[in-house]
Amino acid sequence: VLCIILKAATFGPVPRIVWEQEEIPLTRFNVEGVFNYSSLLLSENEDILYVGAREVIFAVKSTNIAEKTREAYWKVTDEKSEGCARKGKSKQTECFNFIRVLQPLSEDTLYVCGTYAFQPTCDHLDLNSFQLLGKHEDGKGRCPFDPAHSYTSVMVDGELYSATSNNFLGSEPIIFRHSQQSQLRTEYAVPWLNEPNFVFADVIRAPQNNPDGDDDKIYFFFTEVSVEFDFLSKLLIPRVARVCKGDQGGQRTLQKKWTSFLKAKLICHSPENNFFFNVINDVFILKSPDLKEPVIYGVFTSHLNNVGLSAVCTYNVSAVENVFATGKYMQSATVEQSHTKWVRYNGEVPKPRPGACINNEVRALNYTGSLNLPDKTLQFVKDHPLIEDSVYPIGQKPKLMIRNVAFTQIVVDRVTALDGVTYDVMFLSTDQGKLHKAVNHDSEMRIIEEIVLFPNMEPVQTLVLTTKQRKRYIYAGSSTGVVQSPVAFCDQFTSCVECIMTRDPYCAWNSLQSSCVNIVDEKSSGRPLIQALNGDISRCPDSVAQGTEKTMVYTLKPGSMVELNCIHKSELASLVWTFNNKELSDNNPRYRLLHKGILLFNVSEVDTGTYQCLFQENVMGNMISWLIISYIVELERIPPPLLSTTRW
Amino acid sequence: VLCIILKAATFGPVPRIVWEQEEIPLTRFNVEGVFNYSSLLLSENEDILYVGAREVIFAVKSTNIAEKTREAYWKVTDEKSEGCARKGKSKQTECFNFIRVLQPLSEDTLYVCGTYAFQPTCDHLDLNSFQLLGKHEDGKGRCPFDPAHSYTSVMVDGELYSATSNNFLGSEPIIFRHSQQSQLRTEYAVPWLNEPNFVFADVIRAPQNNPDGDDDKIYFFFTEVSVEFDFLSKLLIPRVARVCKGDQGGQRTLQKKWTSFLKAKLICHSPENNFFFNVINDVFILKSPDLKEPVIYGVFTSHLNNVGLSAVCTYNVSAVENVFATGKYMQSATVEQSHTKWVRYNGEVPKPRPGACINNEVRALNYTGSLNLPDKTLQFVKDHPLIEDSVYPIGQKPKLMIRNVAFTQIVVDRVTALDGVTYDVMFLSTDQGKLHKAVNHDSEMRIIEEIVLFPNMEPVQTLVLTTKQRKRYIYAGSSTGVVQSPVAFCDQFTSCVECIMTRDPYCAWNSLQSSCVNIVDEKSSGRPLIQALNGDISRCPDSVAQGTEKTMVYTLKPGSMVELNCIHKSELASLVWTFNNKELSDNNPRYRLLHKGILLFNVSEVDTGTYQCLFQENVMGNMISWLIISYIVELERIPPPLLSTTRW
Repeated sequence: VLCIILKAATFGPVPRIVWEQEEIPLTRFNVEGVFNYSSLLLSENEDILYVGAREVIFAVKSTNIAEKTREAYWKVTDEKSEGCARKGKSKQTECFNFIRVLQPLSEDTLYVCGTYAFQPTCDHLDLNSFQLLGKHEDGKGRCPFDPAHSYTSVMVDGELYSATSNNFLGSEPIIFRHSQQSQLRTEYAVPWLNEPNFVFADVIRAPQNNPDGDDDKIYFFFTEVSVEFDFLSKLLIPRVARVCKGDQGGQRTLQKKWTSFLKAKLICHSPENNFFFNVINDVFILKSPDLKEPVIYGVFTSHLNNVGLSAVCTYNVSAVENVFATGKYMQSATVEQSHTKWVRYNGEVPKPRPGACINNEVRALNYTGSLNLPDKTLQFVKDHPLIEDSVYPIGQKPKLMIRNVAFTQIVVDRVTALDGVTYDVMFLSTDQGKLHKAVNHDSEMRIIEEIVLFPNMEPVQTLVLTTKQRKRYIYAGSSTGVVQSPVAFCDQFTSCVECIMTRDPYCAWNSLQSSCVNIVDEKSSGRPLIQALNGDISRCPDSVAQGTEKTMVYTLKPGSMVELNCIHKSELASLVWTFNNKELSDNNPRYRLLHKGILLFNVSEVDTGTYQCLFQENVMGNMISWLIISYIVELERIPPPLLSTTRW
Repeated sequence: VLCIILKAATFGPVPRIVWEQEEIPLTRFNVEGVFNYSSLLLSENEDILYVGAREVIFAVKSTNIAEKTREAYWKVTDEKSEGCARKGKSKQTECFNFIRVLQPLSEDTLYVCGTYAFQPTCDHLDLNSFQLLGKHEDGKGRCPFDPAHSYTSVMVDGELYSATSNNFLGSEPIIFRHSQQSQLRTEYAVPWLNEPNFVFADVIRAPQNNPDGDDDKIYFFFTEVSVEFDFLSKLLIPRVARVCKGDQGGQRTLQKKWTSFLKAKLICHSPENNFFFNVINDVFILKSPDLKEPVIYGVFTSHLNNVGLSAVCTYNVSAVENVFATGKYMQSATVEQSHTKWVRYNGEVPKPRPGACINNEVRALNYTGSLNLPDKTLQFVKDHPLIEDSVYPIGQKPKLMIRNVAFTQIVVDRVTALDGVTYDVMFLSTDQGKLHKAVNHDSEMRIIEEIVLFPNMEPVQTLVLTTKQRKRYIYAGSSTGVVQSPVAFCDQFTSCVECIMTRDPYCAWNSLQSSCVNIVDEKSSGRPLIQALNGDISRCPDSVAQGTEKTMVYTLKPGSMVELNCIHKSELASLVWTFNNKELSDNNPRYRLLHKGILLFNVSEVDTGTYQCLFQENVMGNMISWLIISYIVELERIPPPLLSTTRW
């Protein structure tokens, strides 16, 4: 059994610190009787977090989500609920209005859609009155019928791009654009979408004034049943698909359908140990002016031999673009009259390239928009939406792999440490209500901390990050509520050594105030801040070399027993006890080493002296030691036996 | 971290008892300077175990393998060794004669083959003189060139059936029959064998006087690269192949090749959690007169997301026969000029059925042997050796799944317990030098014990079982030696309760002798043996109800400390302490509960009384408790303080 424990523990990084919820200041929001806080929308200008839950939309303060400012209930009528129940759905759990779309439409309007008792409906929410305008639009294609079905959406220039299921049964998947001018959708056919599970959508803008006159692109991420692979059972495969913003559909072929829908597989594979991560759970696209290009962060699990492996793979947007721009198409072929197999298409490809956005090159061929693309190109892309080439991750392997954890959501923050290096900090939520904070430092992936967000181990369903330069927070939604967590817990560390050893790019030691502070929160210029992400504790004024200030004196009766505590937070550190500067070994009848202390039995003269508790932690191959606490153990002076009877 | 431990521990059964090597009587055989004890052959008539190692064959007593009776060295000449080194192989590790085939040829001759410095060579070993006859036959096809390459063989009626690689590079796989009359081999082509890793071969005899006049069949088990499945990387698949003993090859087509070579995939899949075991490591075919038909036991691991999962799947021989007799063939087809895909063949199948053995039905069509089978049938089987239908395991799922263990070898013993029920006991060796003994009892799979065979965690390479009705042993070979282990360790249990609670079908309590005995070793008739595989300890004369005999009295000085031990072997039991018949809870400053005992601090009058250590173990849903040991703790009578000084 011991070997099982060791093996499990040595796979992937272990969170260095685990914060139980009572240890740290988390802010919570939930309203009694309201469930399924599944849609979060942050308005950074107004410092408001909009929360879409079951049958209600809330506005809460983003700096303190416990403060609710507005609410708008949007319940299904009894009649609708009855009708839903008659169709065999549960009145207790399903026939409600689950808010699934919550997108900014204009400065003072939100676009909201809900499942509305299996009749998806959309409306406008006026932010001044915080009232729904009662538009009662048909929400088909924008919002699923069934709260259990997958959905994702993104608002781009006032047009809603959504991916979900388009019918009551959930059997018809769709990627849809809702706009006044031109509604477009996917073809309902296996080659386009094959039992997809949509997880994320976002827009990638073309560079401004780009010489090739390229279009903005909307990316969709999902897992679907593979057509190109065969195995003993259905093989799932993670995909990225994209459409062009300027797409207007075709004139005859692909009328009101995407002419620019292409998809490819995302590879998240560890060649070393042959781990395949073939289920994508969430995506975050990191965009920053100081990045050469946006970076796609995906969290993956596996449905093959899944014993709780999770991974993060990252992709350059240019790698995806490249696959769509130059990759080979796949085509289906009938083999021996009865079997359909998908193979690479080696024939001639029509021009303009099927599925390509309208750019200057296409315009030069006299095609000004998708409506006047040639039928040949359109027919080809209709039959060949799948690209054979794969999108490979940066570094050709996962950035992070971990065992016995199922990651559900991801957000990524960028923080520039005091050494001027910018770190991408990943916040990864789990299906057990936890949040992992991971950072890559000198090509070593570390999990700085694990935060217990939800006490009941419920899955985290949504994760949102403030990107403002002031106080930064993570917001997490689950079925029972929303939690607000700071991005770092620097002030939990009361000594410089602890502050340095957390090796958190957010945290630095303020030696004037003697406190561990978040460098993002602090106006840090000119302050005497100490940060050493390599764990160089010698930079601390109170480092081991100079001795610790924590010393306790115990005066004991002979023969008595005492437990000396040595409390620590690091799961990576090991504890060493010294007695009068000599290390104490494990086996001794006079004492017993405990997980967080030492027990002295039957104390006598030989046991008196100084006990010191040291920590040892391996930092990038170096063993770093520091003193946590010193105890001085002395004996009560014993009076001669004759006197003792009189004293007692 | 705790949750990691729990999850890992709750997957699959945990061995109830772990025997370290110093605890149990294992017999070892190894000779200094000799390595790679990879071939074991048991002669039950002579009580001899033949051991093929690197450059030597030994004969040892099977009842005590430490007793070597004969040895025959078979070293490569210096010249051969030099030549091998010149071809780029290592003189230190590879250019030796690794014995790979050790098969009985006649009563006083063994057929032996070795790699012979990458020039496989066979010879006859005369058992009277224990000398090689110096035949120096070319061993190609019978023995690999490279000691790292896979091999298996079986001797059937004086003919050697072998599966290995047929060339220096190891790139040409072969299944071969070596005989005076008719040497046969596989076609060297991907559809026949595609990078196989051979693990086992055995003969399945046709029933005597069977009405359909069927032939004996030789089965081969291996893992190979799948042609029928597509994935991101090469997909391995476990296979069973078979040939007929009467095969003589074809006249024109398939001349000197198997006309009866067919193969199919073996499924070892857990539908519940989608675990695929696609690598087969070893097979044992359980044959017994009281079995309706032989049962194939396979041990599997996975090469997809392999985090140390192992499984045992079992197959009825009739299920395999049925797939070969009635399954659809697969055929390769070219798709779009360049891709080869394998699909089910739906066309007409020639008669007699391609690949079938010559039985009465075929003979009735006037085909008396493979030599006069029609060309059409032969050409078809040459192109279609792969059957599309799969061989499914008994119960449609693995018999045993376990995590963090890689099983390497398996043997299965049958033992009839005192209740008359016959149990199939699986002995599974691991890549870490251990042996697991597992038994299925009332559809609950239990691992009775784990035995540490080799101290250095070296992989177990060969496993052999005596099937004689007297003392039964397991023999295990590794690169450093051979270990002999009894099939059970009943005599390690000194009380009836322990003997019953091991729930080992081999073990029963002899209440006259007051000892736990192996019922197979004992002439058990008439003896008062107690066995209760359901853990009914009430049948014991010394059961909990009647109190235990182990009681210890501790007389202590006031204020002193004492550790009361409670030693147990069961990893499944938990320990409960009572004090004066009241259960002791976990948290108390007066004592500390330890893993195998209790620590009393600062003993005073209130601590005196009876401490009892009970075991609790869940047996098929019932919590069974029994008393291990009682301690009576008393205080020394304290003389008045004045006297005490004079006494010391």
